[in-house]
Amino acid sequence: MHFASPLALQSGARLAGYDLTYETYGTLNAAKSNAVLVCHALNASHHVAGVYEGQDKSEGWWDNMIGPGKPVDTNRFFVIGVNNLGSCFGSTGPMHVNPETGRVYGADFPVVTVEDWVNAQALLLDALGIEVLAAVMGGSLGGMQALSWTLQFPERVRHAVVVASAPNLTAENIAFNEVARRAIATDPDFHGGHFYQHGVVPKRGLRIARMVGHITYLSDDVMNEKFGRQLKNGIDLSYTTQDVEFQIESYLRYQGDKFAEYFDANTYLLITRALDYFDPARAYGGNLSQALARATARFLLVSFTTDWRFAPARSREIVKALLDNRRDVAYAQIDAPHGHDAFLLDDARYMNLVRSYFNSCLSNESLGS
Amino acid sequence: MHFASPLALQSGARLAGYDLTYETYGTLNAAKSNAVLVCHALNASHHVAGVYEGQDKSEGWWDNMIGPGKPVDTNRFFVIGVNNLGSCFGSTGPMHVNPETGRVYGADFPVVTVEDWVNAQALLLDALGIEVLAAVMGGSLGGMQALSWTLQFPERVRHAVVVASAPNLTAENIAFNEVARRAIATDPDFHGGHFYQHGVVPKRGLRIARMVGHITYLSDDVMNEKFGRQLKNGIDLSYTTQDVEFQIESYLRYQGDKFAEYFDANTYLLITRALDYFDPARAYGGNLSQALARATARFLLVSFTTDWRFAPARSREIVKALLDNRRDVAYAQIDAPHGHDAFLLDDARYMNLVRSYFNSCLSNESLGS
Repeated sequence: MHFASPLALQSGARLAGYDLTYETYGTLNAAKSNAVLVCHALNASHHVAGVYEGQDKSEGWWDNMIGPGKPVDTNRFFVIGVNNLGSCFGSTGPMHVNPETGRVYGADFPVVTVEDWVNAQALLLDALGIEVLAAVMGGSLGGMQALSWTLQFPERVRHAVVVASAPNLTAENIAFNEVARRAIATDPDFHGGHFYQHGVVPKRGLRIARMVGHITYLSDDVMNEKFGRQLKNGIDLSYTTQDVEFQIESYLRYQGDKFAEYFDANTYLLITRALDYFDPARAYGGNLSQALARATARFLLVSFTTDWRFAPARSREIVKALLDNRRDVAYAQIDAPHGHDAFLLDDARYMNLVRSYFNSCLSNESLGS
Repeated sequence: MHFASPLALQSGARLAGYDLTYETYGTLNAAKSNAVLVCHALNASHHVAGVYEGQDKSEGWWDNMIGPGKPVDTNRFFVIGVNNLGSCFGSTGPMHVNPETGRVYGADFPVVTVEDWVNAQALLLDALGIEVLAAVMGGSLGGMQALSWTLQFPERVRHAVVVASAPNLTAENIAFNEVARRAIATDPDFHGGHFYQHGVVPKRGLRIARMVGHITYLSDDVMNEKFGRQLKNGIDLSYTTQDVEFQIESYLRYQGDKFAEYFDANTYLLITRALDYFDPARAYGGNLSQALARATARFLLVSFTTDWRFAPARSREIVKALLDNRRDVAYAQIDAPHGHDAFLLDDARYMNLVRSYFNSCLSNESLGS
């Protein structure tokens, strides 16, 4: 969907005009009361569920969660996935032409924040004629957007489902983002963010960024279980410094190579910065309880025991701040081995929890049945 | 000290001849029974204590631990620090000329292992006329060398002090090493490890490697305490993707820049591989108790609660394996906030523990007093 009116951004900059790429699943009911907005994290997109015709491997990134008969049942809910501004899957981003200059944005694409994304998502809902969401949901950075929805548009959100998220990043989280950014920005093929016109891609930097990211998505336990100290070619130690020898190395290199083929370097910088900046309590001197006072939605928060990127304690900070405001909060800490990645994986307790939340808490009020 | 005889390495390769750079502190007694060998970790050297004349800032890396009147008291013990083969602080390494080819080794420097280092250290002790060590000690990778001493030369070690170490690396540890190695090896200035002849240094890669390393040396807690989410220039958010904005970023970039000025890229590859390979239990099908059966030394093991790189549980694996063999083991887990770095920092309980171990356990037998 094209938006011709300029969008004022939190940084003070503005986007002259922009497109938002989105997908919908299911049917909006007559009362327009069954809409669920799904917000994506770093490297995902609007394509949250289903497969594209003739493309077997095009499964949406939350396809186990969303679809007909699934925990978020598209037979009953109208689900919307939207690609965020600055991303690289269709919505206006760094690889597009700036209508005001006629040149590709590149590194000049304005910095976007979680709040900016939520503002843009709200304008999309306006265009779709949806005043109030049955729910907004997301994991990780997507959960930050869901939380921000309840603060920016409290009257437009009935439920917020915030999974494996945090009220802000820790210094360690920022540090890992910074390593990834430096790997990209110091790659000679980055050309200060204007690599498009040089016909190159800073793949070295993207690979390193992805490898670092991937380590933080997994738990130490699951890494040991999946890869351990297994050597790629059995016990014949070849003793080299640069070749792949352990399975974990092979896996990380593969992940890095794959990522560098499709992801945009400027998008990586933009999205990790949005993560760094998000901090609704900043304006309240760090007092999260005060910051969340304006939220009126009902909440489901979910965390995973082995998630060390967004540890359960970070979710509990949100829970506590909401309870301080006597809000309606359900919280589950799932004992899962998979680290941060658990929010994307099948776990019967997790799936059943979301299913039952949507069935019992949302369905009656949203669907009028 | 120059060694003219070739050294056979674990990989099957050999070093035709080599130098070992070392320092000693204190005086070897007549019985040659008061020698303490201190093994260094990734980026340290033979210079474990004291300052060089006229160079105020040349403090040894374990100067708080070792010196006159310090926990390892050089008024009583004869302390030896030795730079490991393949390192870049004087002992033969990748930046030196291969006597067999007349060319700088570069990436052709043979892979060295913890076992190789211990063999070379033993030859240095032979040359110094020291048959039996009062103690071998080290932290992190240095602790692995101390442990390996007790297996390779059980009759030559009376005590082993193994601090913040592990019986091998986890998949996550290897993964972080691999990210650092890839950052170095894919830096265009690396030139396949032969950058010396191109007159360049792969500084981009070294910076990233050091930044990744540094994150893993610190605890999440201490990072939050030292840097938190503090912005470098106060609360005036400038919203950029590439500039330094948070204090933690500034700190990491500084550490990376400093490191890239003095550390050798090939050494980084070699030493991280030595870390990856170390695994005394491998030859025993993963059974550490069997692997440690040959150790006859008495042990002090120390770990730190917030060390997530070499977590206390890893030290306890060693303790358990030694106890399975009814060895004499003291173990302390220090409740310190500083993560892996704690092994280098002042902590009264830690310092007093080592002091009392050396005073009560070593002094009488070693010094005959």
